[in-house]
Amino acid sequence: MQIGVDAMGGDFAPVGVVKGALEARGLLGDDDKIVLIGDEPTIREHLAEADGWDKFIRIEHTSEVIGMDESPVEALRQKPDSSIAKMASLAAKGRLDAMISAGNTGACVAAAQMRLRRLQGVHRPGIAIVMPTYAGPVVMCDVGANVNCRPQHLYQYGLMSVEYAQCICGIDEPRVALLSIGEEDAKGNQLVKETRELFRNDPEIKFVGNVEGREMFHGACDVVVTEGFVGNVALKLMEGLAEGLFKSTYLELTRSNPDLAGQFEKAITTIKDKYDFNEYGGAPLLGVNGICIICHGASKPRGITKAIGVTLNFTKTHINDRITECLARREPGGDNL
Amino acid sequence: MQIGVDAMGGDFAPVGVVKGALEARGLLGDDDKIVLIGDEPTIREHLAEADGWDKFIRIEHTSEVIGMDESPVEALRQKPDSSIAKMASLAAKGRLDAMISAGNTGACVAAAQMRLRRLQGVHRPGIAIVMPTYAGPVVMCDVGANVNCRPQHLYQYGLMSVEYAQCICGIDEPRVALLSIGEEDAKGNQLVKETRELFRNDPEIKFVGNVEGREMFHGACDVVVTEGFVGNVALKLMEGLAEGLFKSTYLELTRSNPDLAGQFEKAITTIKDKYDFNEYGGAPLLGVNGICIICHGASKPRGITKAIGVTLNFTKTHINDRITECLARREPGGDNL
Repeated sequence: MQIGVDAMGGDFAPVGVVKGALEARGLLGDDDKIVLIGDEPTIREHLAEADGWDKFIRIEHTSEVIGMDESPVEALRQKPDSSIAKMASLAAKGRLDAMISAGNTGACVAAAQMRLRRLQGVHRPGIAIVMPTYAGPVVMCDVGANVNCRPQHLYQYGLMSVEYAQCICGIDEPRVALLSIGEEDAKGNQLVKETRELFRNDPEIKFVGNVEGREMFHGACDVVVTEGFVGNVALKLMEGLAEGLFKSTYLELTRSNPDLAGQFEKAITTIKDKYDFNEYGGAPLLGVNGICIICHGASKPRGITKAIGVTLNFTKTHINDRITECLARREPGGDNL
Repeated sequence: MQIGVDAMGGDFAPVGVVKGALEARGLLGDDDKIVLIGDEPTIREHLAEADGWDKFIRIEHTSEVIGMDESPVEALRQKPDSSIAKMASLAAKGRLDAMISAGNTGACVAAAQMRLRRLQGVHRPGIAIVMPTYAGPVVMCDVGANVNCRPQHLYQYGLMSVEYAQCICGIDEPRVALLSIGEEDAKGNQLVKETRELFRNDPEIKFVGNVEGREMFHGACDVVVTEGFVGNVALKLMEGLAEGLFKSTYLELTRSNPDLAGQFEKAITTIKDKYDFNEYGGAPLLGVNGICIICHGASKPRGITKAIGVTLNFTKTHINDRITECLARREPGGDNL
């Protein structure tokens, strides 16, 4: 397959992205190629020292870059030759089988939605992340693609995430929960209440009801469904809190026993690695007719390499076919509402 | 003042609550009394060994208890002699100046709203918590009282929280932010966008715009405004994540160097104390015509004692008068919409 990678997106681009691509060599099959999209001279410069890179990497030159803080839709309109716009356009033409970017998330989501369109039966694509928890991985969807969610959208996020959790996390029968503000039926807003009924009426789904943020980390479910605004707030909050706690813990430890600081640092690094977003290599935009993997803006080379791995897995396990079939079973001939 | 405390509410009630009340003795002035509401024989039993408790504590007997998982409105209707219902009713009659409970939050909020009513000009009361962050305390409102927020509600949460942050956290000119999914104006849902305009048009408020969960922990603002659903999800999430991280860190450390585990445990305890909800003694329901302090269900005696301290401060700093004046300056003669 032809795996498009936005060489210009993310805090460590382009050098970090190029490095991540080079390190993915061992993951690729004979027919797989990484296509780096971005400023060709710069990319070539970073590739120069790698032996035989041209056997598994090719470059698509683009002259523009969308900044991390630009307004997505406007930026896409004004910069048709940006790495993100071009990557989506190549994917739409079938010249790329996947698009990966650590750049402007909004622009990437918008470009993928506009150019790749949706899978048959999908109402709205949603971004799914894998959260590492003490009790195992938990898939959360949506974390920011859709801030105007209807019950049907949330229901489909659950269905799509089940396929994802099975294929990527290897969970046989994922337990699905709705993120809410209390476990009881009476709790939650209107959206949660209406969505709950859709899940309850689906015998194929192992629906465990409402879940609070607290239980989510203690093995209450394998899939958490939420609307994009809440999911995105949650995502950033977790990142900020984890960072703050690590910082405080480290400071407190060095203060109480400076001689042991090095030891503590080692242990904390191990945990940080376990909870590191780089480890999970990006989040797919589930529901688009293609593969779009969104990486964290601060992705290091390892994050990019892992995202390429996720992409290969995504294809190998035929997730998109599974999603289409799963939706068709429920709404035969269903249109994209 | 007469401080009502729900002796039957919370995981450690009644013994933990009674203990917390006893430990608050030093905080009380000559005219202050703690009124424990609950099963009198049980309360007396727990008070028995404390010398001179009757000088600062009295008991109001009730025969019923609302369970943590009961539906709030229904429970209040079915159990008029529950500690929460009776406490609210006594407060409404002026026989109590404050109500404190670590019991069923929903029931406590509903009882306070029904019986105490709202302060002049307040649209909807909101629960404000103080989050300990690496960069200092941050007030977040609302964390669960109101899941059907309109822009005016959020705007008032900001105004009320500013008064609270000034009085309780000692922050001179609190910087107010809206919790959203990106700092740029284009980001966020409709509610966030409309609320932003209200803050922007208020020259008295030091409004710093949107804030993401990440920045919130790094000193970007002193007050974070959000609607109750999002705020409550955030609250529980933070609790779950912190717990999970401490657990993982501890395990990792004992694994990598068992000798250090003891040292580490000590440091972790210090941090946990810093980040402990008990430290902040409950969250006020801002905007009710009275004082209603909601404690965490898992409040230990120290949490109850601190809540009594917050209550005294609440009165001493005349927060409710300040809120009424602050709203009247903006909407002279404003009705409770």
